[in-house]
Amino acid sequence: MSVPEKFTGYGATDGTGRLSKFQYDPKPFGDHDIDIKISHCGICGSDLHTLYSGWGPTDYPVVVGHEIVGEVVRVGSKVTKFKVGDQAGVGAQCCSCLECETCKAKMEQNCAGSVGTYNSRFPDGSKSYGGYADYERCHEHFAFHIPAGMKNEEAACLLCAGITTFSPFLQHKIGPQHKVGVVGVGGLGHLGVQWSAALGADTTAISHSDRKKEDAAKLGAKHYLNFSDEAQVKAAARTFDFILCTSFAPDMPMDTFLSMLKPRGTFCLVGAPEEPFPMRAFDLIPKNINFCGSTIGSPEEIEYMLKFAQEKGVKTWYEKRPMAEAQKAVDDLKEGKARYRFVLEN
Amino acid sequence: MSVPEKFTGYGATDGTGRLSKFQYDPKPFGDHDIDIKISHCGICGSDLHTLYSGWGPTDYPVVVGHEIVGEVVRVGSKVTKFKVGDQAGVGAQCCSCLECETCKAKMEQNCAGSVGTYNSRFPDGSKSYGGYADYERCHEHFAFHIPAGMKNEEAACLLCAGITTFSPFLQHKIGPQHKVGVVGVGGLGHLGVQWSAALGADTTAISHSDRKKEDAAKLGAKHYLNFSDEAQVKAAARTFDFILCTSFAPDMPMDTFLSMLKPRGTFCLVGAPEEPFPMRAFDLIPKNINFCGSTIGSPEEIEYMLKFAQEKGVKTWYEKRPMAEAQKAVDDLKEGKARYRFVLEN
Repeated sequence: MSVPEKFTGYGATDGTGRLSKFQYDPKPFGDHDIDIKISHCGICGSDLHTLYSGWGPTDYPVVVGHEIVGEVVRVGSKVTKFKVGDQAGVGAQCCSCLECETCKAKMEQNCAGSVGTYNSRFPDGSKSYGGYADYERCHEHFAFHIPAGMKNEEAACLLCAGITTFSPFLQHKIGPQHKVGVVGVGGLGHLGVQWSAALGADTTAISHSDRKKEDAAKLGAKHYLNFSDEAQVKAAARTFDFILCTSFAPDMPMDTFLSMLKPRGTFCLVGAPEEPFPMRAFDLIPKNINFCGSTIGSPEEIEYMLKFAQEKGVKTWYEKRPMAEAQKAVDDLKEGKARYRFVLEN
Repeated sequence: MSVPEKFTGYGATDGTGRLSKFQYDPKPFGDHDIDIKISHCGICGSDLHTLYSGWGPTDYPVVVGHEIVGEVVRVGSKVTKFKVGDQAGVGAQCCSCLECETCKAKMEQNCAGSVGTYNSRFPDGSKSYGGYADYERCHEHFAFHIPAGMKNEEAACLLCAGITTFSPFLQHKIGPQHKVGVVGVGGLGHLGVQWSAALGADTTAISHSDRKKEDAAKLGAKHYLNFSDEAQVKAAARTFDFILCTSFAPDMPMDTFLSMLKPRGTFCLVGAPEEPFPMRAFDLIPKNINFCGSTIGSPEEIEYMLKFAQEKGVKTWYEKRPMAEAQKAVDDLKEGKARYRFVLEN
């Protein structure tokens, strides 16, 4: 199969959130690159933040989408990991320096030279474009085999939402000895609850209303906590070892969440509010609280996650939409209509 | 020596910062309590925050001071740790439940039932009063032998400023393999720098001007970083494993400090700004930064610290002031005149 010189995607040229179909130049094809003919691409909250320049000015034109799966149709001369015909996925990172101390320690996601799958620049200055498109070009190190028996459309959202919520549990060695809370039952949180339960932790879904209670139980949460209810919050004071926060609401009550941590407990932020939020020293100091952030996961963690998901039956809850209807899907996500993820299909 | 029923201290009855001499009832004497005839009491930044209700409404009347040293003059019937005539010190905590999971794990400072040495209440409702006074009453578990060869006046400030800056290094197992920054060369920071150097870490004193450069070198800092100088900040990007922040300035540039941490690095707050400060998710997430708080230290850590200080020659830099001149000393501290601590002497 010959790959066109220009790729075609549904992208944005400004911050109005309107998508149009256009062609663009992918990065020059490198010896370690592969080209993927995209079958599916998940829609992530990051796509919205980027389309609307919510996380700072976007480098338009942009083609978003970083939960990309499809068939390998071309491999560079030095590629060893893939062959043409393989099913492969790409998450939110498509490049790093691979040479620094951080990369060598298998924390490529924290490399200073990390390149995001879209709205980012490669070292040669060329732009990265995402998966609302026909093709994706990526360094083999940041592409992953889709396990046999897992459909492409099932794998897609694991590549960002999945690893973003799984990696913190690995980093903090979460297991049956821990009481874990997951704030937000949404695109990220519905996977966070499943990972936590699959790892054997005593898992509580934490939300601002009772609306997600039934879903949380189906996802494996043993408990449900509505943080709008002061009595529930008070009863949970000093009980959690670890809280994974997948919400990015600007008005998150951090003091409420931190009050529910045990001494030395950890609060891990993976949803990124667009604006700075107020932090009070006295929410951290008296209990020696750890407040940390985590971004996606390393290639090694992603490979482990795909196997773990298959073994434990962790699955994205998603609805398929045609790629050509990306605009409507993005708009529906913005309106909170996803239960809990949309996957675009070519 | 008979202990008076009422103790006499220099305390405040309102938030004007004015001290007056008055008598007050100490807590009822318990079987595990000791009375200390105070020889010295260090002046801590917390004293100012409390006198002026900066950390929330103070429960006036208050007698501050929680770096207390003196002679044991009375012991309860069940006291085993001390005998009359011993030299003993008390830090910022004078009571905890001693029965919960947290206390049993030797993290008494994080106990939900922790009682501060002043401006706090014991379980029976009686108030705790601090060390700008003639006597201090305290549970033996929260009192410490002053090592032979260490003067009382030398030990005083170790009991709060010392342990507050030492405990984080123990918790995070800091040693020669780490590059450590200490923000603020003041009452806390001048000890932080010494601990870090004594533990063998590659230590940088971080301040907002060059004024403390010479002192920092004398304290053992191998490097000095003036964070008002953008070039210095830029050169230090992603270089620190651990930053101890002893400043409580309301306008601390957290983004600047966090930019200087390595991936997975830790920022530990021990100075407590009175107001909430803005936190940006993107200062934490891309490098998986850990932002934590730490309060004082456990009794076990305090005992270890006193020995470690003596062994390594870690010393408070202090100026003695007569107890009767507590007002002037407090006012001088407020005006930034301490280099780096005042110790009141009876």
